Amino acid sequence: MAGFVIENIGMLATPMGTAAKYGEGQGEVSIMRDAWISVSDGFIEGVGSGAVPKAENTFDAGGGLVTPGLVDPHTHLVFGGWREHELAMKLRDVPYLDILAAGGGILSTVRSTRAASEAELIDKAMLVLERMLALGVTTCEAKSGYGLSLDDELKLLRAAVKLDEMQPIDIVRTFMGAHAVPPEYIDDRDAYVDLVVDKMIPAAAGMAEYCDVFCETGAFTVEETRRILLSAKDAGLRPKCHSDEINAIGGTEMAAEIGAVSCEHLICVEPAGIEAMSRHGTIACCLPATSFYLNAAYAPARAMISAGIPVAFGSDFNPGSCPTYSLQLAMNIGCYKYRMTPEECLTAVTLNAAAAIGRAAIVGSVEVGKKADILIWDAPNLEQICYRFGDNLVRSVFKNGELRSGATSHVK
Amino acid sequence: MAGFVIENIGMLATPMGTAAKYGEGQGEVSIMRDAWISVSDGFIEGVGSGAVPKAENTFDAGGGLVTPGLVDPHTHLVFGGWREHELAMKLRDVPYLDILAAGGGILSTVRSTRAASEAELIDKAMLVLERMLALGVTTCEAKSGYGLSLDDELKLLRAAVKLDEMQPIDIVRTFMGAHAVPPEYIDDRDAYVDLVVDKMIPAAAGMAEYCDVFCETGAFTVEETRRILLSAKDAGLRPKCHSDEINAIGGTEMAAEIGAVSCEHLICVEPAGIEAMSRHGTIACCLPATSFYLNAAYAPARAMISAGIPVAFGSDFNPGSCPTYSLQLAMNIGCYKYRMTPEECLTAVTLNAAAAIGRAAIVGSVEVGKKADILIWDAPNLEQICYRFGDNLVRSVFKNGELRSGATSHVK
Repeated sequence: MAGFVIENIGMLATPMGTAAKYGEGQGEVSIMRDAWISVSDGFIEGVGSGAVPKAENTFDAGGGLVTPGLVDPHTHLVFGGWREHELAMKLRDVPYLDILAAGGGILSTVRSTRAASEAELIDKAMLVLERMLALGVTTCEAKSGYGLSLDDELKLLRAAVKLDEMQPIDIVRTFMGAHAVPPEYIDDRDAYVDLVVDKMIPAAAGMAEYCDVFCETGAFTVEETRRILLSAKDAGLRPKCHSDEINAIGGTEMAAEIGAVSCEHLICVEPAGIEAMSRHGTIACCLPATSFYLNAAYAPARAMISAGIPVAFGSDFNPGSCPTYSLQLAMNIGCYKYRMTPEECLTAVTLNAAAAIGRAAIVGSVEVGKKADILIWDAPNLEQICYRFGDNLVRSVFKNGELRSGATSHVK
Repeated sequence: MAGFVIENIGMLATPMGTAAKYGEGQGEVSIMRDAWISVSDGFIEGVGSGAVPKAENTFDAGGGLVTPGLVDPHTHLVFGGWREHELAMKLRDVPYLDILAAGGGILSTVRSTRAASEAELIDKAMLVLERMLALGVTTCEAKSGYGLSLDDELKLLRAAVKLDEMQPIDIVRTFMGAHAVPPEYIDDRDAYVDLVVDKMIPAAAGMAEYCDVFCETGAFTVEETRRILLSAKDAGLRPKCHSDEINAIGGTEMAAEIGAVSCEHLICVEPAGIEAMSRHGTIACCLPATSFYLNAAYAPARAMISAGIPVAFGSDFNPGSCPTYSLQLAMNIGCYKYRMTPEECLTAVTLNAAAAIGRAAIVGSVEVGKKADILIWDAPNLEQICYRFGDNLVRSVFKNGELRSGATSHVK
């Protein structure tokens, strides 16, 4: 299929443009009925409604909804093991610190990840990527951060580089060596921050585009985070920051000020944090499924939209606090818990998500010149994919103009 | 495959027996490692671990988890239309009564259902049943209740009878003409109750096994519900009752007393209701996804288990308050919100669900003599299917000993 037309599109819903949508603009989604999309060499060549241009090949969308491929701007894709065995402890109300002391929590994932070979990590992540694709994700971010040693962090980034080549989803890498202080540095955390700054960042710069830090009580202080992110910026890694997930310690304010592309989580962001993000154009990367899973509060997404901040949704896929990679569930929670509209949620998982990982020029909307990353849904309209939940409503997934997952029966 | 063996089962997890599991017994699940199951003519012929018996055909479970097929004891399977357009009103905080007054709510589904032909209703439900099967459901209940006239209620039951024949999932029918008072009887509700009792129940008795009533402020009073359920009982329809969903008006206490098989919802059940269910052996049919979707409270499932009541989970699939049919999501919510264990949740969606619709003698567990309704999961253990969420973790679905959905590649 070098060139083809997707026809019989009941509704084409897409944000428009090549940059994040701010504030109320987030809900401005183009809705076209009776539409078609022409694709050539993996890119979108034309979009219209009514009379369909002639083409050698056509793909019948069956009157369904069509949207851009989903973009997941926040995942911890590569890790060893799972953590299902902590469920029993959680149900007995064992505090997280006791789980940690019993060898569980993030440190158990660090052990499993260090013990795994690069090939084993790749095999495991491949299974996940296959499912993410089936669920409509065509571009995702992948953070390191379960290695916490120079060699292990580079192993994770190398795995992500190879995974990017091995399967259809484009993978944008983020170095996150400052995810936790590893046990061997627990009595000398300054030495770990030195290691991150002096050794890891220079080595990661060739394999990642972003640097993220977990700025939180018990993880990294605001000052440590600032030092790491500024050093990353000097090395050419654009800053991101996990902030205001559990405690508002000022990470968001600091990250916005030093030019972070996005702040992540933001469950307990304070007015000063919102004001700082708004002033500096920082993207809010909210993680709806994590709040659901942890019985935590929901980030004040509506307040951030009102303050003129672009909101993106990530899955936060990781083995501890959010073992799902479904952005469809994120959209549903975005409507019913954040109380965002379907249009705002669509922008959050497409154009604004793409902007959060520097890809808004090339993906995140169905427009001429962008990659032909296109979803056909088992639903007639945008509202229905936010309203129904608990199933995969994506019928067919095109990545770079090729049908890579889902129903093929409509290809003529 | 008249006879075959499923081998290489990493973990076989199943409740045991032919009746509901009460109280703490709900968590007593048989766990067998390195197991096999032999199947003959659609039934389970043998179950064991270690040396696999000789068989003409084998199916390799790939070391995965195997459980009984899921049983959904509470669905409103057959209806016309969807209600995604109410989402925008809900997000603007329009009260339900205003949505109703604007022609929305349950009455819009009644209009769509009345307007649809039996064939149209069947086509629509077939798509849902195909997805339910893929998600692991091998037996389900289907309530009427969106017709609300003699002809339309019978149309729904007839559709469910035909659907039972047309696809693999066994469908148990429940007559629920007393789901709402239809608009044409709004000024003479006694006449509608007379119609249900005098005309609908006798006609439904040939096509349904159960009768359910929505006992709730604004729907049917406790006295009306009692009259309908007793009349149903006389006609050979076993009683069920939607009670304590929004207001505790005494429906649970009454239903338990007249011998209802199950009470459904139970979000705001009071101690007297729990005591009555416990005394009369009533099954609690809880609907975890509905609470999630409506931002409502979660039913006190742990308190009911402690009181010696068997707890089942249904999806409550319907176009208004719960547009999902995923019992996998129900299990996840069961753990994380009800705080039930994975073992208790498994019993809730298999044996206790089967008991709630009178099928515990024949399905709901993997035991010799029961139907070979068997799931192979993309997970190594029971905890993992409760811990991970947002994706379909069922890999292969056997119904009556035939592979009806999912991966076939392991068949040798």
